[in-house]
Amino acid sequence: MTQPTLNVTLAGATGYTGMKLLQLLSGHPHVGRIRVGARSGAGEALASRVPFLHEAGGLNLEPLESLAEEPGDALFCCLPAGASPRLAARARERGARVVDLGGDLRLRDGAARARWYPEAGSSPEAAAMSAGAVYGLSELARPQIAAAGLVSNPGCYATAALLALAPLARSGAPIDGAVIVDAKSGVSGAGRSGDLRAHFCEMHDQIAPYATGRDHRHVAEIEQSLAGWMGRPQSIVFTPHLVPADRGVLVCAYARLGGGAAGAEIRALYARAYQNEPFVRVLPEGVLPDTRSVRGSNRCDIAVRWIPEASTLVAAAALDNLVKGAAGQAVQNFNLMFGLPEAAGLSPAGDPL
Amino acid sequence: MTQPTLNVTLAGATGYTGMKLLQLLSGHPHVGRIRVGARSGAGEALASRVPFLHEAGGLNLEPLESLAEEPGDALFCCLPAGASPRLAARARERGARVVDLGGDLRLRDGAARARWYPEAGSSPEAAAMSAGAVYGLSELARPQIAAAGLVSNPGCYATAALLALAPLARSGAPIDGAVIVDAKSGVSGAGRSGDLRAHFCEMHDQIAPYATGRDHRHVAEIEQSLAGWMGRPQSIVFTPHLVPADRGVLVCAYARLGGGAAGAEIRALYARAYQNEPFVRVLPEGVLPDTRSVRGSNRCDIAVRWIPEASTLVAAAALDNLVKGAAGQAVQNFNLMFGLPEAAGLSPAGDPL
Amino acid sequence: MTQPTLNVTLAGATGYTGMKLLQLLSGHPHVGRIRVGARSGAGEALASRVPFLHEAGGLNLEPLESLAEEPGDALFCCLPAGASPRLAARARERGARVVDLGGDLRLRDGAARARWYPEAGSSPEAAAMSAGAVYGLSELARPQIAAAGLVSNPGCYATAALLALAPLARSGAPIDGAVIVDAKSGVSGAGRSGDLRAHFCEMHDQIAPYATGRDHRHVAEIEQSLAGWMGRPQSIVFTPHLVPADRGVLVCAYARLGGGAAGAEIRALYARAYQNEPFVRVLPEGVLPDTRSVRGSNRCDIAVRWIPEASTLVAAAALDNLVKGAAGQAVQNFNLMFGLPEAAGLSPAGDPL
Amino acid sequence: MTQPTLNVTLAGATGYTGMKLLQLLSGHPHVGRIRVGARSGAGEALASRVPFLHEAGGLNLEPLESLAEEPGDALFCCLPAGASPRLAARARERGARVVDLGGDLRLRDGAARARWYPEAGSSPEAAAMSAGAVYGLSELARPQIAAAGLVSNPGCYATAALLALAPLARSGAPIDGAVIVDAKSGVSGAGRSGDLRAHFCEMHDQIAPYATGRDHRHVAEIEQSLAGWMGRPQSIVFTPHLVPADRGVLVCAYARLGGGAAGAEIRALYARAYQNEPFVRVLPEGVLPDTRSVRGSNRCDIAVRWIPEASTLVAAAALDNLVKGAAGQAVQNFNLMFGLPEAAGLSPAGDPL
Repeated sequence: MTQPTLNVTLAGATGYTGMKLLQLLSGHPHVGRIRVGARSGAGEALASRVPFLHEAGGLNLEPLESLAEEPGDALFCCLPAGASPRLAARARERGARVVDLGGDLRLRDGAARARWYPEAGSSPEAAAMSAGAVYGLSELARPQIAAAGLVSNPGCYATAALLALAPLARSGAPIDGAVIVDAKSGVSGAGRSGDLRAHFCEMHDQIAPYATGRDHRHVAEIEQSLAGWMGRPQSIVFTPHLVPADRGVLVCAYARLGGGAAGAEIRALYARAYQNEPFVRVLPEGVLPDTRSVRGSNRCDIAVRWIPEASTLVAAAALDNLVKGAAGQAVQNFNLMFGLPEAAGLSPAGDPL
Repeated sequence: MTQPTLNVTLAGATGYTGMKLLQLLSGHPHVGRIRVGARSGAGEALASRVPFLHEAGGLNLEPLESLAEEPGDALFCCLPAGASPRLAARARERGARVVDLGGDLRLRDGAARARWYPEAGSSPEAAAMSAGAVYGLSELARPQIAAAGLVSNPGCYATAALLALAPLARSGAPIDGAVIVDAKSGVSGAGRSGDLRAHFCEMHDQIAPYATGRDHRHVAEIEQSLAGWMGRPQSIVFTPHLVPADRGVLVCAYARLGGGAAGAEIRALYARAYQNEPFVRVLPEGVLPDTRSVRGSNRCDIAVRWIPEASTLVAAAALDNLVKGAAGQAVQNFNLMFGLPEAAGLSPAGDPL
Repeated sequence: MTQPTLNVTLAGATGYTGMKLLQLLSGHPHVGRIRVGARSGAGEALASRVPFLHEAGGLNLEPLESLAEEPGDALFCCLPAGASPRLAARARERGARVVDLGGDLRLRDGAARARWYPEAGSSPEAAAMSAGAVYGLSELARPQIAAAGLVSNPGCYATAALLALAPLARSGAPIDGAVIVDAKSGVSGAGRSGDLRAHFCEMHDQIAPYATGRDHRHVAEIEQSLAGWMGRPQSIVFTPHLVPADRGVLVCAYARLGGGAAGAEIRALYARAYQNEPFVRVLPEGVLPDTRSVRGSNRCDIAVRWIPEASTLVAAAALDNLVKGAAGQAVQNFNLMFGLPEAAGLSPAGDPL
Repeated sequence: MTQPTLNVTLAGATGYTGMKLLQLLSGHPHVGRIRVGARSGAGEALASRVPFLHEAGGLNLEPLESLAEEPGDALFCCLPAGASPRLAARARERGARVVDLGGDLRLRDGAARARWYPEAGSSPEAAAMSAGAVYGLSELARPQIAAAGLVSNPGCYATAALLALAPLARSGAPIDGAVIVDAKSGVSGAGRSGDLRAHFCEMHDQIAPYATGRDHRHVAEIEQSLAGWMGRPQSIVFTPHLVPADRGVLVCAYARLGGGAAGAEIRALYARAYQNEPFVRVLPEGVLPDTRSVRGSNRCDIAVRWIPEASTLVAAAALDNLVKGAAGQAVQNFNLMFGLPEAAGLSPAGDPL
């Protein structure tokens, strides 16, 4: 085997995304040494922070700064907004390539960044790093990702919504007005913290929308990509919901189309767009995506349905928020960046059972 | 106390709706004797069919025919589509008033009925009974319900969607194109049966859309009411989802509006429409509905949000599918029919905890 | 109606027990004004702390000291260990009777109290208050509770275990060795806090024992009551577990018996002990308790089974940890203290559905 | 690589155990062609029966008889009690080795078999096949399994209970009286069927014991192994519970010991017994097993705690009922039977996240 063995560092290993990323990297055939860090607990065993990973073995947490100083071949950042830009900058200086799973480097526009990520969006590091960052929606930006020093990994909702809308948006089809994006997520999407809203008893038997309309950060990154593909602004109306599941994002996007669209053409458009993709599957007619089918998998399942009575396309997409929506896509991007097989360390099959 | 004591019969007591209705009627201050029946198990103790109601005491199941022959003052039908029309007809002949919680008498149009409820929709009984049935969306049809011999109780999704859209639809506001209705439901909404799709392990950690677009029966009853209010057809695009909750329906409706709508006006419109309603609450600005807040309650919580960038109104509504979405609204309608206090036997407070 | 209307105060209204107690007191026919407080947030609306109780209406949080100064007829304390003794002492001085739902006044023995409740167990207030406190296992101490100025409400596990063992322990039957008590609880039993172990995603699909053997505080109060009934020490081995439910405690107690015990006698013993109890039900042979059957109810369901091959009695008990295991039993004790009907404001039927 | 590639057949692929086994075999490095069958649906795509495995690809269901006629190198039977003996006999005649995951071949004693597995236990095939079957508790019977033509795979509860008790039972320590085994299981342990008791809404927020005492089939196989190890009968008292989890079994076994047992000795005994086991881990003092830590893993985690005040050993064990409790142990046995690396196709790490 002539593929390299790469040493990596992981900043932010005690959240759900970091834990999943560690799990994926630990099984990756081209990853050698892995070092981990967190904002607190330097010197402690990682396992002490993650009860149900108590087999996580010998890894000890390092200070984040140590990781940035000696980042190995690649640094993965799974940190809350605000913490990444400085670390990423230092790791770049030290010669590493970086995949940032936080949000603060996703937006190109400085004003947008400052609005949505006030923690760091207006810092010089953020400006500098964002300028060179590639938005890592893997299937849609392979050449750019391969050449990137810094990839900004998309958000979970954004990945599902953009994969559901990309073929349409890139086709030049006349979208009439705002696209409605209604999204549902398991609770792990809200992060691993002591927030009372994530308490088992608060989410049990609960279905709750939040940040409705245009209040969620992912609105900005979805619209940024749509505008790039369409050559003009395209607004969305976005409603995320939390439901009592651990994992999974399910998005339904509703786009009204002008002109004489037809269901068969749209289905063909989607089939062509993703026909060779190992991690995106357009479902046969009559089959709808669901989150269990993609649990543990790096796959995004998509179904499109044309409703002629309403001139509306319904595009539904499901993914695992911790895998294709975060850690899995990060590994996919890492593979692209280092010229590894794109599926290395990733499974399309998942763990639905 | 000069209020009457009414004797009632309940056909279909072993499903979730029937069980909840029995629970509500058992605590109703103006209900006397309650008799229950089911499609099978006549002669058996009701408690033998409902493990966690084993305190349900002395009630035994009677054959459905016995209930229809001696229906008491009112017959409630909680039966699968197809079974109600004949029973309802017989109970009417025997002098009872009827609340039907099945779907087959909700549609006025014979062709629509035959399409959506082929089990009974085209039968002479269904045609005859539907002609005289009042669609029992309590808040919107009080006088008709009060005078009705037969009330057809709305579906759970339809109740939430219609309460969310009624003030807008009745206002004459210029709705542009189809209204998007994206709905999420707990599993009890799918009924109590041995369907493998409702198995604990199939729904655990699952988020699954179904019957997307215009394939769900409730599309017809929602559009029927909208057309009645608006004086012209109004189409919807509807996507229901099952999520791993026991109870609750959460609907987000998205209506694009022409002309110069404004958020404040729309909020005022909703506030006025429901200001005196004990069971509909328009939430303060910035508060969104959720299903836990209405669990066990007969209340529907509604929030409206105007998105000017998209000329789109987002109306979100939450209710308990077994209460305001079924058994509770049935009791509300029963109260209206018999001149009882509308809230008798019902709680606005619920059991969120 | 000649029953009094009593004004009450509730210290600690923002935890699950406090919220449930508020719900019960709000519907209590002999309770008038209710005032609430919490350790923080004085001046804020209670509803701001409890999202899914946003109908909780006009109540504002007061400082705990204000409640103790003007406690009304009764003060209920739902506070973490350590906070109650001083408040309770002050409220007693101001003439109120007190029901304490914390644990620090449950143990008579000073050394035990200091060991298990170091926060306050060794304070002079705790010593003074404990001396006069009545352990409020309602069914077993009615006269003492009726006369008490301060009732210390039993823990949830302790209530289930003691109701399951009381008839046996009080019968003088020769229990051979330690009694095994294996208990399972929904997550609300662990309290409402930002503890990561209660995060939805940590408890989802999880079954986890904790504090096994003799490490849980409830061991002490269970053994204290057993010793009182038996006239000699009786040790237990106790293993609590958390399971992914919101509510409910299910206890299986295993007692080996010497002599010639027989199943029929033991069943008769239990039937007699609880035959007139509105809130304890001995289930018919072949029926086992479960937590859904008692959800929302103040009832404890018990089944006993004699295993002759092992000379072992299996006594299983189920209750709702927030009702009979906490707030419901507190109301039951309040009723006994004030000479109200014991079931006032309480339901044996519950909300299993 | 000189290891063989083996072709296998799987009878009963549409239940949870069968689905998990198919998943494991599909990723097994020494398994070649896999053919699957079920009691119904011959000719249909497997994927049509298993919604969330819709990527299961090209496999079609064959009649069970076809599998038995051409069983390949090994036949795995995941069938309800009664169906295996005849199929296993035929596959043996055709030269295959068999791993039976049903229960009817686990008991050596004909009377016990007839009592617990009346469906087939008294048939000549069952008698003949049981006589030659090896009870496949992998860690305790490696040589016998390696030489076996037919392995009867242990039940999930039995695997956890026996691994928790084996070091003690084999040590000759004087166990005093019956051992108490209190077990909790996720719902998948109850099988994939339309049984109403497994409906999402019946198990939601539910904790329910069943088959308490000595009524569960696994009592017989646990006692059979204990007697074999101890050279005398050892009775148990067993209470299984269902809790609202998908996966996992957690067993607490309580054994009273005579003589002068000591905690340190017992801990050392367990540590020695399992020190080289890849799939059994004795946890460090103070750490307790839980089901999330072993989800998706073939590992069983065990903790032992000696309670001197009660002369009682508490041994707690956790495993994934579908992996180490069923399909994983079946693969482990298959590996032993064919001289493959014991861990081939299996993971000790699992998918806790």
